Amino acid sequence: MSIRSFHPPVRTLMGPGPSDVHPRILEAMARPTIGHLDPRFIDMMDEMKALLHYAFQTQNELTLPVSAPGSAGMETCFANLVEPGDTVIVCQNGVFGGRMKENVERCGGKVVLVEDEWGMPVDPNKVAEALKAHPETKIVAFVHAETSTGACSDVETLARLAHEHGCLVIVDAVTSLGGSPLKVDEWNVDAIYSGSQKCLSCTPGLSPVSFNQRAVETIQKRTSKVQSWFLDLSLVMNYWGGGTKRAYHHTAPINALYGLHEALVLLQEEGLENAWRRHQNMHAALKAGLEAMGLHFIVPAAARLPQLNAIAIPEGADDIQVRSTLLKRYGLEIGAGLGALAGRIWRIGLMGYSASPKNVLLCLSALEAVLTESKASINPGVAVDAAQTVLAERGY
Amino acid sequence: MSIRSFHPPVRTLMGPGPSDVHPRILEAMARPTIGHLDPRFIDMMDEMKALLHYAFQTQNELTLPVSAPGSAGMETCFANLVEPGDTVIVCQNGVFGGRMKENVERCGGKVVLVEDEWGMPVDPNKVAEALKAHPETKIVAFVHAETSTGACSDVETLARLAHEHGCLVIVDAVTSLGGSPLKVDEWNVDAIYSGSQKCLSCTPGLSPVSFNQRAVETIQKRTSKVQSWFLDLSLVMNYWGGGTKRAYHHTAPINALYGLHEALVLLQEEGLENAWRRHQNMHAALKAGLEAMGLHFIVPAAARLPQLNAIAIPEGADDIQVRSTLLKRYGLEIGAGLGALAGRIWRIGLMGYSASPKNVLLCLSALEAVLTESKASINPGVAVDAAQTVLAERGY
Repeated sequence: MSIRSFHPPVRTLMGPGPSDVHPRILEAMARPTIGHLDPRFIDMMDEMKALLHYAFQTQNELTLPVSAPGSAGMETCFANLVEPGDTVIVCQNGVFGGRMKENVERCGGKVVLVEDEWGMPVDPNKVAEALKAHPETKIVAFVHAETSTGACSDVETLARLAHEHGCLVIVDAVTSLGGSPLKVDEWNVDAIYSGSQKCLSCTPGLSPVSFNQRAVETIQKRTSKVQSWFLDLSLVMNYWGGGTKRAYHHTAPINALYGLHEALVLLQEEGLENAWRRHQNMHAALKAGLEAMGLHFIVPAAARLPQLNAIAIPEGADDIQVRSTLLKRYGLEIGAGLGALAGRIWRIGLMGYSASPKNVLLCLSALEAVLTESKASINPGVAVDAAQTVLAERGY
Repeated sequence: MSIRSFHPPVRTLMGPGPSDVHPRILEAMARPTIGHLDPRFIDMMDEMKALLHYAFQTQNELTLPVSAPGSAGMETCFANLVEPGDTVIVCQNGVFGGRMKENVERCGGKVVLVEDEWGMPVDPNKVAEALKAHPETKIVAFVHAETSTGACSDVETLARLAHEHGCLVIVDAVTSLGGSPLKVDEWNVDAIYSGSQKCLSCTPGLSPVSFNQRAVETIQKRTSKVQSWFLDLSLVMNYWGGGTKRAYHHTAPINALYGLHEALVLLQEEGLENAWRRHQNMHAALKAGLEAMGLHFIVPAAARLPQLNAIAIPEGADDIQVRSTLLKRYGLEIGAGLGALAGRIWRIGLMGYSASPKNVLLCLSALEAVLTESKASINPGVAVDAAQTVLAERGY
């Protein structure tokens, strides 16, 4: 056996995440490793917390990056807040609602499922009905930005509804954080988790989470231990909690945290509102191009996420062949459909560093060329112009 | 708020891990991120598996890096193998046996604790007695290399004993993998987990695990779901399992995996036996120096790990002051005692890239200078010579 160093190709990542990683973040990842109890590292952790406060628009004391990908952030929320026998309303309008359901059940909770069609936002009326029908409900869980469909649900309304019935909310913000408006304190979100590899443009592997005082009290009142030792926040907080005396819980992923720190510094430099606006502008340009080509979005305009553009695969196009040609010839990755939408849609991500005019134009040119070659029914020769018009209008 | 990029200091890491990271690994971490379903990434995953097979000395099909630190690797073993009501013998001779106990209990298992003094290896006679007293036992769990004390237990003997009673073994190899002899197949280990940041010299954040056929069958025969969705191996294997069709489970930590791949390539280039020998040689040199200085190891010679040297803090030395002076003046990190040994010992790591003549000599010089200044009772002026003699004898 003689395996050599791995040198990955350079791709343009316009799938559902990971997105293109900013060069400054890659550079940060390669800085010298120091100990997880080094005083300089502790300082960095304090900065990380302040940066996450800004990104989440919160002052929640219990705000930290879980040392594992977004799925572990999801599990952190459910494992800490759900006790056996608890009723949880889970809103499912895509893949990740289904994953939430799995989490609740594995924590011994009872799930009341509120279903919406894939591609539609969560319907607050259905949630209101479920809350009335199940007054024993403790938690309402839903996805802000459904990565599998590109639908955006109304966090503020759903949280208000849940609170009117004395429930907590758990919000999946994996794809929304940094990409579209998210205001944890203003919207009264109790528990929220995200991922590093979407609109923060960082490498995958970390999951920022935040819990408000109501959620913390719920955890403190538990009568059973959290079933995961690794994700038990009462233990994790001995390390991430404030103060100079930090107790070892697990070894933090030092270099990955350098990367996330840099990603959050970049977000702070750009400004959160500017980042939201950039995602919206790039989406408008991409949309103009895709629609000029004759492609259709599957999500109604009002609920469409700028950072995740799900379009129906046009007549005559072969899903796998188109995506593999884009990858081989242009080094361009776009995403396939998941679950019920597999083979029916493509998901074009405009997340973080990937949300740039260059990427919009590359994607439209490449997609048009490959679709034309594959004899799919599209309007050729107009997409790039349509996008450039929008970009110019918006000052790019 | 205006937080700037974080530039860590350059340290020499001779604590219990993370160890000094090889520059080639840091370089690998900064390579361009690609998608977790990219065909080139899938190729890299296959190489990773072959490299892990070599490092663990196994042919186990179910061998992969868990996308989180060693504690999550531990939890992967327990959460997948333990079902509610199962009896597990947990051997505790340091901090990590205690963590195993927590894991079993949180999985609903019953713990039979076999205790040995901290600093001693696990006593097979006590395990034999526990197995006789608890014929219902399903699993015996123990730590190969106790990172909190530096004691090495006899995996082969303990595994044989467990198998004679029809039990599986779960082995913690966080600190042993790559640093001292470990032969998963030859020793009949059923389930094992390790960490990236010890003798593999990689950054923290990943946990290589391996399960043999007996363990896989035990998982397949479960009557209850694994309580963690994130760590459920039946799901994780749809992504890490062989074949070209990989199903998305969670987004893999791409760049961290580049780093681990490079770490394992380095191990393959050096050769496993050569790496074990280097750790032993550096330990011999450090030991000669420390003992010449008048310092004492807390672990009996026969059970001493080369990569984790636990020494009693000498009379007159202030634990915290000595360690912080080493850090401030020499950029040198050594480890504090944990749990029962806090304030009583130091832990000097010689792991992976840190196991070098340069580090041995720096550590001895710096420690001697700081201890002399702090009026601790040591023999000055002899440590470096003693170490250099051993290094010369062994061809360094």
